Amino acid sequence: MHSARIPILDQGFMRGDMTYDVASVWNGRTFRLNDHLDRIERSSQKMRYRIPLSRPKITNLIAEMLSLSGIRDAYVCLMVTRGMERVSNNPAIGKKAEELQNTLYLWITPYVWVMSPEMQMGGGGRAIVARTVRRIPPGAFDPTVKNLQWGDFTRGLLEAADRGAEYPFLTDGDGNLTEGSGYNICVIKNGVLYTPDRGVLEGVTRKAVMEVAKAQGIEVRVEVVPVELVYQADEIFMCTTAGGVMPITELDGKKVGNGKVGKLTGSIWDGYWASHLDDKLNVEIDYAAGASSSIRSKL
Amino acid sequence: MHSARIPILDQGFMRGDMTYDVASVWNGRTFRLNDHLDRIERSSQKMRYRIPLSRPKITNLIAEMLSLSGIRDAYVCLMVTRGMERVSNNPAIGKKAEELQNTLYLWITPYVWVMSPEMQMGGGGRAIVARTVRRIPPGAFDPTVKNLQWGDFTRGLLEAADRGAEYPFLTDGDGNLTEGSGYNICVIKNGVLYTPDRGVLEGVTRKAVMEVAKAQGIEVRVEVVPVELVYQADEIFMCTTAGGVMPITELDGKKVGNGKVGKLTGSIWDGYWASHLDDKLNVEIDYAAGASSSIRSKL
Repeated sequence: MHSARIPILDQGFMRGDMTYDVASVWNGRTFRLNDHLDRIERSSQKMRYRIPLSRPKITNLIAEMLSLSGIRDAYVCLMVTRGMERVSNNPAIGKKAEELQNTLYLWITPYVWVMSPEMQMGGGGRAIVARTVRRIPPGAFDPTVKNLQWGDFTRGLLEAADRGAEYPFLTDGDGNLTEGSGYNICVIKNGVLYTPDRGVLEGVTRKAVMEVAKAQGIEVRVEVVPVELVYQADEIFMCTTAGGVMPITELDGKKVGNGKVGKLTGSIWDGYWASHLDDKLNVEIDYAAGASSSIRSKL
Repeated sequence: MHSARIPILDQGFMRGDMTYDVASVWNGRTFRLNDHLDRIERSSQKMRYRIPLSRPKITNLIAEMLSLSGIRDAYVCLMVTRGMERVSNNPAIGKKAEELQNTLYLWITPYVWVMSPEMQMGGGGRAIVARTVRRIPPGAFDPTVKNLQWGDFTRGLLEAADRGAEYPFLTDGDGNLTEGSGYNICVIKNGVLYTPDRGVLEGVTRKAVMEVAKAQGIEVRVEVVPVELVYQADEIFMCTTAGGVMPITELDGKKVGNGKVGKLTGSIWDGYWASHLDDKLNVEIDYAAGASSSIRSKL
């Protein structure tokens, strides 16, 4: 990865004009890969990108990259950018969206932990509700298009560091919770799981978490979450593909609940990782097949 | 430029974590280069970047690049990115801002016209007030930090194309005008020039335009500009380093004023280009000096 290069003219760099998605592979098996591919197709459609490779070709390439690398716990990244020319209605400096050739980047690395397993097991992380920045509103950029316009998140990360915490939670500027720098937020109060319905990514891990919670008989509400609820929470966790279910046990310098990883959080954590064994969601990669490895027929 | 490459891990690509500035060179002379260097220093400070080269070193490199290329009308771009590692409060995936090594890219190309001279001279351009997107608010990302998180602008450009226009104007979502995709907006009504005070880049061309207008006895007001005023305007123009003073003569499919480039717009246009000859603002590049060309002592 350190030697990989892209054109400086790529509009993902030149104008932040891109969408991406991150899937994971755990113990040699994909996890909800179809959910991620569905989402990047929806995101690309909203951005008016045409993904330059077909879905079967992409899944085969992912299988090939995994097999050739031998990485069994992997972070699998797909990026679609506008390509080498900018969108413009002035032919002298660019082209209209439908005339442009878009670019797809695919890369894999070992699995990334937004919260380390040590912190997940050892007491959880520290969060703040950012007070120097709000989330970019959906009317300015649709957060269901997974994107890397992280100016607001980066500002939140700087504030978290200043305040002795790891993870920022951003509000919508109107008293409601949204999300953080690459993760959805779940709040548990009186046995009910709350997560914001608007101004956030429709997370694949969030979807997995909601399925697990419901299967465990936990009521799930996807609705407006006033920031006040976060301060009254019994338990809080974050969720993302790169880390799974990540407990937050300190908020704005004070304990969440009793300050320990919550009981429902632990139970959802177990269910989430157990779902990686579900054959309906996941496919085993053929690591012996090398460049012939394929997951087309199985998905 | 088409063969120039950057690391895929550059955080300007990976997290939109960057600021930039564009200066121009016209007829072999810099134009307000110090204003651009002042601004990128302020932007970098706000982002907690440390520009890896000193200001004299940067000005000398710009002179050297201009001289070696021979480009006498140039677009001069400076980009400062977080560098190769991401900001994180989790040592497993990144570092704190103060521990990171930031990156500077410098590149030049022939001058870019956001509105072609033919359109500027030949009747002006067509704009729309975007109705499908609002500008990212200052509370989510500070627009005085010149940036390439163009999701809102790109959306505006797509809408402009759909509506038969070239240029989007974005509102603040609260009934007020902000800016467009790389330009400030100036509205003239009853001989007074209005331009928004908040939610916009503090443009160097805007500054030049305001100085020119004042010198011509035109009253200038930098204040909240209700979007209603745009529809009542006698004249409208946009301004940016890459194009200068760019008249808009059609808005949402209707004529602005009498539909011709306005008198005050024309007079400011003339004054703006005349100011490129001002020895207090500009420095002549030594194109014969090649790699020894320097503007350090003169600025």
